[in-house]
Amino acid sequence: MEWVPGASMDSLKHAVQQGKKEIRVGDIVISRDTFTVIAGPCSVESREQIIETAKAVKFAGAQLLRGGAFKPRTSPYSFQGLGKEGLEHLAAARQESGLPIVTEVMDTQDIPLVAQYADVLQIGARNMHNFALLKALGNINRPVILKRGMSATIPELLSAAEYIMHAGNHQVILCERGIRTFENSTRYTLDLNAVPVLQELSNLPVFVDPSHGIGIRRHVPAMAKAAVAAGCSGLLIEVHPHPEQALSDKEQQLDFGEFTQLMAEVRRMRGK
Amino acid sequence: MEWVPGASMDSLKHAVQQGKKEIRVGDIVISRDTFTVIAGPCSVESREQIIETAKAVKFAGAQLLRGGAFKPRTSPYSFQGLGKEGLEHLAAARQESGLPIVTEVMDTQDIPLVAQYADVLQIGARNMHNFALLKALGNINRPVILKRGMSATIPELLSAAEYIMHAGNHQVILCERGIRTFENSTRYTLDLNAVPVLQELSNLPVFVDPSHGIGIRRHVPAMAKAAVAAGCSGLLIEVHPHPEQALSDKEQQLDFGEFTQLMAEVRRMRGK
Amino acid sequence: MEWVPGASMDSLKHAVQQGKKEIRVGDIVISRDTFTVIAGPCSVESREQIIETAKAVKFAGAQLLRGGAFKPRTSPYSFQGLGKEGLEHLAAARQESGLPIVTEVMDTQDIPLVAQYADVLQIGARNMHNFALLKALGNINRPVILKRGMSATIPELLSAAEYIMHAGNHQVILCERGIRTFENSTRYTLDLNAVPVLQELSNLPVFVDPSHGIGIRRHVPAMAKAAVAAGCSGLLIEVHPHPEQALSDKEQQLDFGEFTQLMAEVRRMRGK
Amino acid sequence: MEWVPGASMDSLKHAVQQGKKEIRVGDIVISRDTFTVIAGPCSVESREQIIETAKAVKFAGAQLLRGGAFKPRTSPYSFQGLGKEGLEHLAAARQESGLPIVTEVMDTQDIPLVAQYADVLQIGARNMHNFALLKALGNINRPVILKRGMSATIPELLSAAEYIMHAGNHQVILCERGIRTFENSTRYTLDLNAVPVLQELSNLPVFVDPSHGIGIRRHVPAMAKAAVAAGCSGLLIEVHPHPEQALSDKEQQLDFGEFTQLMAEVRRMRGK
Repeated sequence: MEWVPGASMDSLKHAVQQGKKEIRVGDIVISRDTFTVIAGPCSVESREQIIETAKAVKFAGAQLLRGGAFKPRTSPYSFQGLGKEGLEHLAAARQESGLPIVTEVMDTQDIPLVAQYADVLQIGARNMHNFALLKALGNINRPVILKRGMSATIPELLSAAEYIMHAGNHQVILCERGIRTFENSTRYTLDLNAVPVLQELSNLPVFVDPSHGIGIRRHVPAMAKAAVAAGCSGLLIEVHPHPEQALSDKEQQLDFGEFTQLMAEVRRMRGK
Repeated sequence: MEWVPGASMDSLKHAVQQGKKEIRVGDIVISRDTFTVIAGPCSVESREQIIETAKAVKFAGAQLLRGGAFKPRTSPYSFQGLGKEGLEHLAAARQESGLPIVTEVMDTQDIPLVAQYADVLQIGARNMHNFALLKALGNINRPVILKRGMSATIPELLSAAEYIMHAGNHQVILCERGIRTFENSTRYTLDLNAVPVLQELSNLPVFVDPSHGIGIRRHVPAMAKAAVAAGCSGLLIEVHPHPEQALSDKEQQLDFGEFTQLMAEVRRMRGK
Repeated sequence: MEWVPGASMDSLKHAVQQGKKEIRVGDIVISRDTFTVIAGPCSVESREQIIETAKAVKFAGAQLLRGGAFKPRTSPYSFQGLGKEGLEHLAAARQESGLPIVTEVMDTQDIPLVAQYADVLQIGARNMHNFALLKALGNINRPVILKRGMSATIPELLSAAEYIMHAGNHQVILCERGIRTFENSTRYTLDLNAVPVLQELSNLPVFVDPSHGIGIRRHVPAMAKAAVAAGCSGLLIEVHPHPEQALSDKEQQLDFGEFTQLMAEVRRMRGK
Repeated sequence: MEWVPGASMDSLKHAVQQGKKEIRVGDIVISRDTFTVIAGPCSVESREQIIETAKAVKFAGAQLLRGGAFKPRTSPYSFQGLGKEGLEHLAAARQESGLPIVTEVMDTQDIPLVAQYADVLQIGARNMHNFALLKALGNINRPVILKRGMSATIPELLSAAEYIMHAGNHQVILCERGIRTFENSTRYTLDLNAVPVLQELSNLPVFVDPSHGIGIRRHVPAMAKAAVAAGCSGLLIEVHPHPEQALSDKEQQLDFGEFTQLMAEVRRMRGK
């Protein structure tokens, strides 16, 4: 009568390994013993926007810069990202700020191009079950941040990581970003339960994206702090110079002041 | 095309009021400006068990004692609680420890009996939509802790509170305790998003029950701390002298040592 | 790692029994071998309304009349039903039409009153986990139609039935009426999968309520026919003389013409 | 406070168009006025297996043959399909049976290869939000059957169709195949509500896959008939010569006898 969704944990050879796991991005070490913040706009909109944001989030304490060049949008009539031009702007922002860059890749055919620019490749929630993409990212030598699908169980998230690792790339960071439930007062339901459960089942770093997880700008800081208290190894936060003018996700991006204050509170929580 | 579940916020006169709200239980003030911990076993199992637990949780820093005398159990063949005898044990534990007691009432007919013993009455998640019970508790002068139904939206939780308040009893504490989702690695999905959202929509104190919210004993402390960081006004924690021997919820109760350590960490987080 | 929600089937002694099960309401036999339609308004609104509806649904082929006197409403400011007066109107409609009546009871204290009037007592979805009510209905000699809670698993529905049967009343009809999911284009998600699964696990008759299950009047007939094709033993359909003027559930009630046409199509499907 | 998931219907230019829509596959016309059955194994396992199945399902009344060559599997250690060899076996089965073939494409890079063999391309549930794939399939001249993502709302399914149509390919068939909910007695929850709702919102043919929708072989026929009664324009059914030996989805495939009987019942329902 019982149905067991997802993969059996027994079948996973890599994602469930124990022992210390360190992922290096330049001088930055991402692991269970460190804490890392990735910040930046949902979409790269212009060279100025991304450079300005890079400097601001670095000043506030972020260690990596995020920004979308290829955007997965529900409607084909929404802004789809700047593509290659966006990647070039990201590279310029890295040059100016010194921050390594994280950006999403949506298709196997784009991997060579994106890998040319990005320090860390992101797999978005909508592609967590894009097995061709997972396998292809297993063949490159670049850390991957893997976002949980909006209806993926915890074993399925680990199985997706296993695809990447099985193909040879062990530099995987898991990211909880909210799941889809009946509750629609918030964009998604941020599942912080996943943090300790994933940490027990695997040795991969577990990050949290509170921006998508609640989807309401003024409540992002509360959820970011909750994620820290739950024990995550890093945060992924959307930050934009002028959130209300953003071309995507305008409801959930922090401005520089809000992000700076959040970082101060996170440091205080972590006793730093 | 769009369906709006739950009640419209506009129709709520009491639950959405702003301004400071204080609920008093003896000397204890429960409000947005205070932080209160309610702890104790899922079920009252014996006089010794509840007295021992009362003393232990008081020593660790809890301000109220919880314990179930009437238990809502999925199966009629499971332990159903000690009933009136359980209430008498709770009264003895209050006498011994000085802690006010919180216990669940499951039926309108039991209200006179339970109200004779309890300082705070609890409405369980399975009864959040028991409108007869909500109305009846609106007629008594005793604080009520109202747990969110496992599939209740945030507007529906506030509407349930409105039933109690509309009938005349304004001493309502809201409690997030996990919602039912597709994820079954954990007992429920603790919805901490609900904390800031409820706090914005109403002036009622918002508590969190991480014990039910994750349902896995070793992960309860992480979720308790996450709830504190999200900004809740109190916690409801299941504590038992010997969790592995508990007659109900044995998978999620903390022992005295675990609870004491959690309380120390919570105090540190709150800077006390 | 795996969490098994709901009750174990092994612990159920009555709800999972096999063999033919017949429930009699006057001359009507409700069982796996028969097909029964219960129809009527969401709420009894006046003597004329319920008598007119009783005659119309009888003429169209319904065998029982439904109508709510005590209404579970999300908001305390919504119409709460006519109470005892509604029961009297139902009795009058029975007198005029000859149809037995089905009505909801929401609280243990109301059972004596409601049982005085109703031929079949209904437990609504919001009370499926009201264990005090389940136990109390186990002590009376009257068939009970038990609606699935909006987030109740199939084992939990059977456990709720077990409560009633364990207390001595074996005349239980199960009713699927839609579950709560992320999909909000419809009021609930009608889970017709539950029909064959419940029929395999127990010998109780399984009914379907497509009115609540989809919540959109013009789509109710499609779902009613789907339920028949899935093999259910009966339907519960909301019918109102003037749905657009109904005091509750106006979006989902059929008018007499729509119901009459649906009944003709259902008879055709069933080869009668 | 209200969150509106998915795309606004207003923004869709193609998927929401009304008027008769016909999709031709050889002599077969797929539309709201016709009824089409696609049947075959989950995976192509050998030339013999697929040819034998093609003949059997044709004899029983199916009009198209399905079979997976590239398989999306949760675990990298599960059978991943025969790839190009599988496509060749499918072509041989088409040759032998005369049935056009339907097979899944999982990655943009595979489109030229798969399109060389398949008469209809399938987008699986896990790729419904793979926007790169949707866009690429918009550029080819071949019908596409688009399966609903397991957590996709109805507006999101229509938006995914819009991606394909916006890029130029208007030959899209929608397919409901079960959504993910808390209920785990069945593999997914088949959402038949989606059939009339999708038919009202768009003019695209709406198919149903009861095999995945319930995931329990002995209950697939009940759900197939329910889907027909709900008004769908076609069925997608998994059929295997020896389901218990299948390399994938062994719990939900029908054998030839079961499928033949189901087809007879479906014809009877449709009055043919």
